[in-house]
Amino acid sequence: MGSKRKGILERLDAGEVVVGDGGYVMQLERRGYVKAGHWTPEAAVEHPEAVRQLHREFLRAGANVIQTFTFYCSEDKLEISGNVKGITFFEHVEEAVWAVEVLKTSGKTIGATLCISPHGDMDAVPPGECAVRLVKAGADIVGINCHLDPLTCIRTVKLMKAGLDKAGLKAHLMIQPLGFHTPECNLGGYVSLPEFPFALETRAMTRWDMQKYAREAYNAGIRYIGGCCGFEAYHIRAIAEELAAERGFLPPASEKHGLWGAALEMHTKPWVRARARREYWENLLPASGRPKCPSMATPADE
Amino acid sequence: MGSKRKGILERLDAGEVVVGDGGYVMQLERRGYVKAGHWTPEAAVEHPEAVRQLHREFLRAGANVIQTFTFYCSEDKLEISGNVKGITFFEHVEEAVWAVEVLKTSGKTIGATLCISPHGDMDAVPPGECAVRLVKAGADIVGINCHLDPLTCIRTVKLMKAGLDKAGLKAHLMIQPLGFHTPECNLGGYVSLPEFPFALETRAMTRWDMQKYAREAYNAGIRYIGGCCGFEAYHIRAIAEELAAERGFLPPASEKHGLWGAALEMHTKPWVRARARREYWENLLPASGRPKCPSMATPADE
Amino acid sequence: MGSKRKGILERLDAGEVVVGDGGYVMQLERRGYVKAGHWTPEAAVEHPEAVRQLHREFLRAGANVIQTFTFYCSEDKLEISGNVKGITFFEHVEEAVWAVEVLKTSGKTIGATLCISPHGDMDAVPPGECAVRLVKAGADIVGINCHLDPLTCIRTVKLMKAGLDKAGLKAHLMIQPLGFHTPECNLGGYVSLPEFPFALETRAMTRWDMQKYAREAYNAGIRYIGGCCGFEAYHIRAIAEELAAERGFLPPASEKHGLWGAALEMHTKPWVRARARREYWENLLPASGRPKCPSMATPADE
Amino acid sequence: MGSKRKGILERLDAGEVVVGDGGYVMQLERRGYVKAGHWTPEAAVEHPEAVRQLHREFLRAGANVIQTFTFYCSEDKLEISGNVKGITFFEHVEEAVWAVEVLKTSGKTIGATLCISPHGDMDAVPPGECAVRLVKAGADIVGINCHLDPLTCIRTVKLMKAGLDKAGLKAHLMIQPLGFHTPECNLGGYVSLPEFPFALETRAMTRWDMQKYAREAYNAGIRYIGGCCGFEAYHIRAIAEELAAERGFLPPASEKHGLWGAALEMHTKPWVRARARREYWENLLPASGRPKCPSMATPADE
Repeated sequence: MGSKRKGILERLDAGEVVVGDGGYVMQLERRGYVKAGHWTPEAAVEHPEAVRQLHREFLRAGANVIQTFTFYCSEDKLEISGNVKGITFFEHVEEAVWAVEVLKTSGKTIGATLCISPHGDMDAVPPGECAVRLVKAGADIVGINCHLDPLTCIRTVKLMKAGLDKAGLKAHLMIQPLGFHTPECNLGGYVSLPEFPFALETRAMTRWDMQKYAREAYNAGIRYIGGCCGFEAYHIRAIAEELAAERGFLPPASEKHGLWGAALEMHTKPWVRARARREYWENLLPASGRPKCPSMATPADE
Repeated sequence: MGSKRKGILERLDAGEVVVGDGGYVMQLERRGYVKAGHWTPEAAVEHPEAVRQLHREFLRAGANVIQTFTFYCSEDKLEISGNVKGITFFEHVEEAVWAVEVLKTSGKTIGATLCISPHGDMDAVPPGECAVRLVKAGADIVGINCHLDPLTCIRTVKLMKAGLDKAGLKAHLMIQPLGFHTPECNLGGYVSLPEFPFALETRAMTRWDMQKYAREAYNAGIRYIGGCCGFEAYHIRAIAEELAAERGFLPPASEKHGLWGAALEMHTKPWVRARARREYWENLLPASGRPKCPSMATPADE
Repeated sequence: MGSKRKGILERLDAGEVVVGDGGYVMQLERRGYVKAGHWTPEAAVEHPEAVRQLHREFLRAGANVIQTFTFYCSEDKLEISGNVKGITFFEHVEEAVWAVEVLKTSGKTIGATLCISPHGDMDAVPPGECAVRLVKAGADIVGINCHLDPLTCIRTVKLMKAGLDKAGLKAHLMIQPLGFHTPECNLGGYVSLPEFPFALETRAMTRWDMQKYAREAYNAGIRYIGGCCGFEAYHIRAIAEELAAERGFLPPASEKHGLWGAALEMHTKPWVRARARREYWENLLPASGRPKCPSMATPADE
Repeated sequence: MGSKRKGILERLDAGEVVVGDGGYVMQLERRGYVKAGHWTPEAAVEHPEAVRQLHREFLRAGANVIQTFTFYCSEDKLEISGNVKGITFFEHVEEAVWAVEVLKTSGKTIGATLCISPHGDMDAVPPGECAVRLVKAGADIVGINCHLDPLTCIRTVKLMKAGLDKAGLKAHLMIQPLGFHTPECNLGGYVSLPEFPFALETRAMTRWDMQKYAREAYNAGIRYIGGCCGFEAYHIRAIAEELAAERGFLPPASEKHGLWGAALEMHTKPWVRARARREYWENLLPASGRPKCPSMATPADE
């Protein structure tokens, strides 16, 4: 960790993988400090120890970057963190471009993630063109956050990359998707699902889903890899573990985690011991225990 | 809370509802402080602030009782908390009786929960007889914890109550079930599910499932109502909210929670606003977003 | 078939397996000759060639016995077929006993199948006692038909057998269950399912399910093995194929059926050719193609 | 029906709806007369009464057209029926064009249905261009049959129509899709599903699914509406009933069918009587009764 920390851009320029953090509001809502529906960040003032503990967990899980917890506060959707300014959650690229232009005056590194699907933004601007506009406005890092599940967000970032390549532009790629399986809502995002926001449990991803996601994001050329709503510390650890070889180290929290279930080797039940291996967890199709529930819902906007 | 706190037994004797806490090891595993497979409680020493934060969350969610985090430590399965001594996780009533007899010498209140199904303990002793033996050995509170889902555990506690009634014995009833839907594993418990312990996400209960559980537990005459593995702070808050009328107050964490989704009334999307009502959440059958996964698994012991 | 056919009782006494036929009304409803809701057998008069064709199919599939198509006609629920008189569909053993007593006066072989669950008849008479009463009244063959799925019906027949054994009585055992998966309706039968009678398609059993059923029925000591509503000719053929070794021959319709998918060996697609083997079909868990539908329904009587 | 039957083209030119028949090989396989894997039509010679009976059922269900049962015979994939020559099951439009050119020399009406997805034929020729080529080659009626489910096939026919419109060409539209739910196999068709061909039961459509299909096909401008593999007589009747107002009559088999479950009004169980209405069946999401099975499979070609 050294006395002189490298900045995000320095790391990305050097080809390093930057692991992002996970979701704050959803997790703090479950812990009792954020009100769903409002999603305002007063916990940072009212219960700083609770916010600090969540920060600690993400760091311990391997995150290089910790976002300030200011979502939906007065400087709506703007995140300021040391030498980096980030903008997130924009559904219209036009607005995001304005924000990048303003932040650019600060002279700091600008990261900009949109909240859009492979179909484009709310004005039907395709992902490739969105990326081009953001980079031309001055963004150093572009990508996607929230609203859709990991594999869908990777598809969108790939389209952004293709747009940049075609335009002869360069930028670092970033992704912070949902930690939920949401195959139905490719247009409206998970807000359109019947389960939003109080019955999303059954869609939550496992740590193994996250390892797959981290690998596919890496293979797509994305180097800032984190999560948004639904990502807990162990999901971030899964990213850090999947990319341990590329990064050269395991995160602190891995001292409490056997890779691919290795710590089950000592379990008293023989059938649990038999699960201490990668093939088991990679191929498991977990049951929901809810036989009266369907697999897929009808989004509100369809 | 006043300067003189009442003891559990005093509360239960007065007919009060005692809300228990939730699960420590599974939650601390996800936060990066406990190793799955070992499940040892060294976090209490290594990362006391992380354990303290989880305690704070359960208290804030409405728990009257906080268990010391000593699961699987040297005094295996014995929990000591002020004036109460509790024993939990016993699968054989015979062992539990020995433990109660030893603890009884301390002169403190004894709570004893078994980890058994409606079919009885590992030696096929029926729940009713288990309860009778525990009470005769000196237990003041008897019940069930872990391994099976809430509605199944309620069935078992009812059988314990019926056994006590038939024997003309009296004791307070306690329940701390799993926070997962596990309809398949009525014999072996969730350890026998293919998803144990690293792919249980999709079985996690919603807050609305917990309100239903709290009501049914209360209707069954159970007055110590909490949770075990899988119960997070918001699940405990759901118990406290369901029984707010009976207890006469809401827990502190409810200041960040609209009852039955009330805080969604201000959401920007009309279809989300339409969810700010009890009927919506009570009747929702949440989709898993996993169309290639089944609803039910085959337990390892079948 | 020779000039002198053996009677059912002669066959059963000789230890032979008798393969029954399948369901008439449901199949003829789908073919356009029976009205659902009424389920009356006027097709035998109005469209005899359609009824005859279905008889031919069951015979060709391996059935030894063909029931006359008189369900719900004036002699309600009484079937007369050569030297055998059968009664079926009784939900109250008391009524069935009266019917057996009347038929007994004919001097013919009497088969009596109830339409009950392992919980007993509509008056809560347990299956074991039902069997005893039927045999004491004069039934030569007793068992179960319709309303519940094959494996559940086998459980009920086992209970009937246990009752007879305990009473020191002897009778041949018969089973003609539903051809649908109906795990939810152990009490009321499939009439209580939301899908009854016009959306049962997705519950229909495969030929491989039927082979498993035939084997389990045989292992339970049942020797008259057929089907009721939902059983088509290829389901009956599956019974005959599963028990080909025991019977000593394959049915005529097997000339158009490779055992365990053998005829797929010549398919143009390599992955279909790979399915020409028993393991593939025995272990397949078929998908429904209906991601918005649940796995289990709530019966009307719960 | 009169003494002088109108030809298909005369009917279609007059704006009439022509109801096609259903699937022969799959149904005759289940009845014991066709060998799966070979799918050859020797039953027409070996068991003509069985083939005739199935023809009768489709006619009675409302079909205007009966295909000769010559699938996969020596004149492979060519169907000759009175004054119409039809070609079906082509996966390459190039081959289909050759066939149309040959048949055109007969001077008869030519119907040509491809077996392709909305993505185009096996050479990636888009549906619109396929239609243009077929019509230019001389086809009077073009459309889609088999391999994909009804709603997907309608999408493909719409693309064909759009192609014809753009090219200023005119032709009648025809559709004979699968009678199975197959949302996963948009490229390879149901042959790529793990359930093909012996475990497709759970994907079978209900009569209510068929009414929805018939309405959507009609609304898309398709006037020759039938079915292929998986379509039984009652599915064809459902098409005829849905379009009874447009055609001006109900089919003969409707004398044995209450519209939208009307005949259930006399059922003995009150909850079944409550199902004698359109809303019930239109909105039912039927359960599979198979909690260990998934909703969606992974096609072999993915």
